[in-house]
Amino acid sequence: MSKKFSKTLDPDDWEGFRVQGHRMLDGMLDYLESIRARPVWQPIPGEVRESMREPLPSQGEDLDGVYRRFLESVLPYTAANAHPGFFGWVQGGGTPVGMLAEMLAAGLNANVGGRDQMPVEVERQVVRWMAELFDFPDSAGGLFVTGTSMANFIALLVARTRALGDAVREHGLAASGGAQLVAYTSEAAHGCVAQAMELAGFGRAALRMVALNERFEMDAGALELAIQADLAAGLRPFFVAATAGTVDVGAVDDLIAIGAIARRHGAWFHVDGAYGALARLSAELAPRLAGIEQADSIAFDFHKWGQVPYDAGFVLVRDGAAQQAAFAAPAAYLRRDARGLSAGSPWPCDLGPDLSRGFRALKAWFTIKVYGSERLGEAIAESCAIARYLADQVALRPALELLAPVSLNIVCFRYRGESGAADDQLNAALVADLQESGVAAPSLTTVRGRLAIRAAVVNHRTQRRDIDAMLDALQVMAAARLPAGVPAPSGPAAA
Amino acid sequence: MSKKFSKTLDPDDWEGFRVQGHRMLDGMLDYLESIRARPVWQPIPGEVRESMREPLPSQGEDLDGVYRRFLESVLPYTAANAHPGFFGWVQGGGTPVGMLAEMLAAGLNANVGGRDQMPVEVERQVVRWMAELFDFPDSAGGLFVTGTSMANFIALLVARTRALGDAVREHGLAASGGAQLVAYTSEAAHGCVAQAMELAGFGRAALRMVALNERFEMDAGALELAIQADLAAGLRPFFVAATAGTVDVGAVDDLIAIGAIARRHGAWFHVDGAYGALARLSAELAPRLAGIEQADSIAFDFHKWGQVPYDAGFVLVRDGAAQQAAFAAPAAYLRRDARGLSAGSPWPCDLGPDLSRGFRALKAWFTIKVYGSERLGEAIAESCAIARYLADQVALRPALELLAPVSLNIVCFRYRGESGAADDQLNAALVADLQESGVAAPSLTTVRGRLAIRAAVVNHRTQRRDIDAMLDALQVMAAARLPAGVPAPSGPAAA
Repeated sequence: MSKKFSKTLDPDDWEGFRVQGHRMLDGMLDYLESIRARPVWQPIPGEVRESMREPLPSQGEDLDGVYRRFLESVLPYTAANAHPGFFGWVQGGGTPVGMLAEMLAAGLNANVGGRDQMPVEVERQVVRWMAELFDFPDSAGGLFVTGTSMANFIALLVARTRALGDAVREHGLAASGGAQLVAYTSEAAHGCVAQAMELAGFGRAALRMVALNERFEMDAGALELAIQADLAAGLRPFFVAATAGTVDVGAVDDLIAIGAIARRHGAWFHVDGAYGALARLSAELAPRLAGIEQADSIAFDFHKWGQVPYDAGFVLVRDGAAQQAAFAAPAAYLRRDARGLSAGSPWPCDLGPDLSRGFRALKAWFTIKVYGSERLGEAIAESCAIARYLADQVALRPALELLAPVSLNIVCFRYRGESGAADDQLNAALVADLQESGVAAPSLTTVRGRLAIRAAVVNHRTQRRDIDAMLDALQVMAAARLPAGVPAPSGPAAA
Repeated sequence: MSKKFSKTLDPDDWEGFRVQGHRMLDGMLDYLESIRARPVWQPIPGEVRESMREPLPSQGEDLDGVYRRFLESVLPYTAANAHPGFFGWVQGGGTPVGMLAEMLAAGLNANVGGRDQMPVEVERQVVRWMAELFDFPDSAGGLFVTGTSMANFIALLVARTRALGDAVREHGLAASGGAQLVAYTSEAAHGCVAQAMELAGFGRAALRMVALNERFEMDAGALELAIQADLAAGLRPFFVAATAGTVDVGAVDDLIAIGAIARRHGAWFHVDGAYGALARLSAELAPRLAGIEQADSIAFDFHKWGQVPYDAGFVLVRDGAAQQAAFAAPAAYLRRDARGLSAGSPWPCDLGPDLSRGFRALKAWFTIKVYGSERLGEAIAESCAIARYLADQVALRPALELLAPVSLNIVCFRYRGESGAADDQLNAALVADLQESGVAAPSLTTVRGRLAIRAAVVNHRTQRRDIDAMLDALQVMAAARLPAGVPAPSGPAAA
């Protein structure tokens, strides 16, 4: 081993290394080209799981040997979101284009925290594109982060600093002078909104979970009442987080109405568009997000509907200066200069908590450049069309019932078995059966107290035949689990 | 474009795509193999910077065309931390092995937030290795994050939850019941420790910046006095962050003494070992970190001395259950089951703020497996030996002076010009000259009020000849800038 990397950690034998690299690239392209032929997911055999356990190796191994371990023990046992039959959660499929861009980024090994370097300019270009997409001003701030959990947290911190001024950075929440700040989101909001309140020191009790209307959207009237009640109690509303694409059923809050209420009360209007925001790339779907262009900040993930490989979260802030005010800090060794590497301030590290930052922007830049916004929007619209197809198929099968309207790309349905708790058990068992079969991987969630089979169509590889395969397998599995006399979820002809 | 990606975002012509992919891999291997022949850094020409600006493209472009734009406009203009002549900041160089591993991760497109999948097991294996390295128990928790800024923040949150209990998650800092929590670090701590206090809602005023001793380490006696004073004032000390490798001069706090003080007062003992912690991989250097094995938590970056590509930060927490208590949260759609994809709880998302998480663990796993801990430790020790070589060369040249002892791998020195502010200007100009020359890229910092040229030797590619090249260029540049009669920083023979 040390023979192969004698002077530095670069290979001594570059030609041999190059052959190995091409073998690994071919292996991954083979994997992606033939992914449809693989099981969606498969349980990890005990011996494979155990094979990962070994003491810290003092000596190195041949790269090809390590790669073969990867091929045998890792590649077959992912959560399979790259597979067209994966419907479990809102996760994108990735693309080979994104994979190659990530390879380039890893080779450059750029730290995009700052300095005068083109990787920072690439990130700024993606920020400008997103400002253009969401009709934000040129002065908007934007930043790549891991995911929307972090993006929501950053937006909350910018809002906190706007509400309390620079004093909050010096004196913490005590800077509020006893006027307790409160925030608002809906009961269907992602858990990371409440988590952001925890992280920032407010605690989740300072977040009002506003009730939903019949479309699973935040009830605007209930929001107004909650704010009025808090004002009457001497509290200070400062942050409203609407959702564009709820995690359970894919509902989009009425962003025009919610935004107007937030503005009327001087509160920051944030949109958690973790997966839904990029629907704006589709001319057909963009009207569903009307009002998002009025937000103070938007959080979303390129790795969901944008199909950029994990992770690639993003936060866009209308007032770039406010974002900088929440994070920029001086440090002797981070001094800025007019010349040399330390020019080009402000830097990305002035806009968020990270100083060490990978070059996430490159895979997003490649994705946008190679596909163009129209093709990306088409893929998003197509996944909604496939979700509607699934909803139609559910409606056609008497043994199945839909548990929520299909707003975008998430379908919550349920097998009608016997009643009560036994039904929940049956549906839970059917989802595990489906996952273990390798045919399809939906997930489970709870919709208004009832356990639901949840299918999120996000992956650009998913087609109608993948929906058919899931429903056909469900029929077989239900028949196997049901006592005779209870109808299996048959197709329309058999119903 | 849409012809090339008609049904999905995968290529219709896989063979043509494959040829393009191999071209891109060869391009990056060419870049890395010949990196020494390139300038370290070069200013970005105005037209290159401007070429990045374009409206959001509605139509896609050929992948090869986008790649050529990358080759022309991005690759030549990085901050150059992959180059052996980069000494600017504590940034690793990356390796081709890490690049290939990152390509595999991007192809799998695994979201390592949770689920029963081998990518989670790979991360758990790296956690076990780190627990072994730092002599932590098997029950330790660990998590990949972007960087040490986030790792320090997570450690602070775990300590906050231990101090205030679950009530802090519900009620925020008000859960302290008026007993103000205070934290401690040294004046030389990285700015992200203060930032973590801001993020968590404490504010930076609740962080005591303990004075340094003559070795630039936290003064243990001053820490004890600060804690005593705060206790006397009715405050509650809860968190002590020592530093293993300060950012300005590379000092290591006395971890045994600091840890003992923290324990005596019931405070959480955290070590910010952003770059220094991995010195434990070197048998020669490990004793310098004595006491780190007693920490409650350690934060560090694999992308610094570990040479893993950006970003790959890490946090290790002795009490894994405490880490989980600070972050785990129930959500209907994240339900855990005994079977299927939702088995295998607890998940990584229960140990930190991110739910969407890239597969950072894979590039660290490949790096550790391929090189082994000994070879990685040797590379770390070698960078310290090269820093000592630079310090020796500085001592031999009368025109140069050392501004701080060389503890690990950072050398702060200065050109002796005239006096006062003019000296600072001269040194600042020399650093910009060096950077713009493409020969070497040190940075500037301030050491006890004096501007210093700071050279951090981190990259495994750096050799003694790179130090010689920097000093030789400095001599020429100083001669060009100095009035006749002032000595240039000549070598020992000429001195």
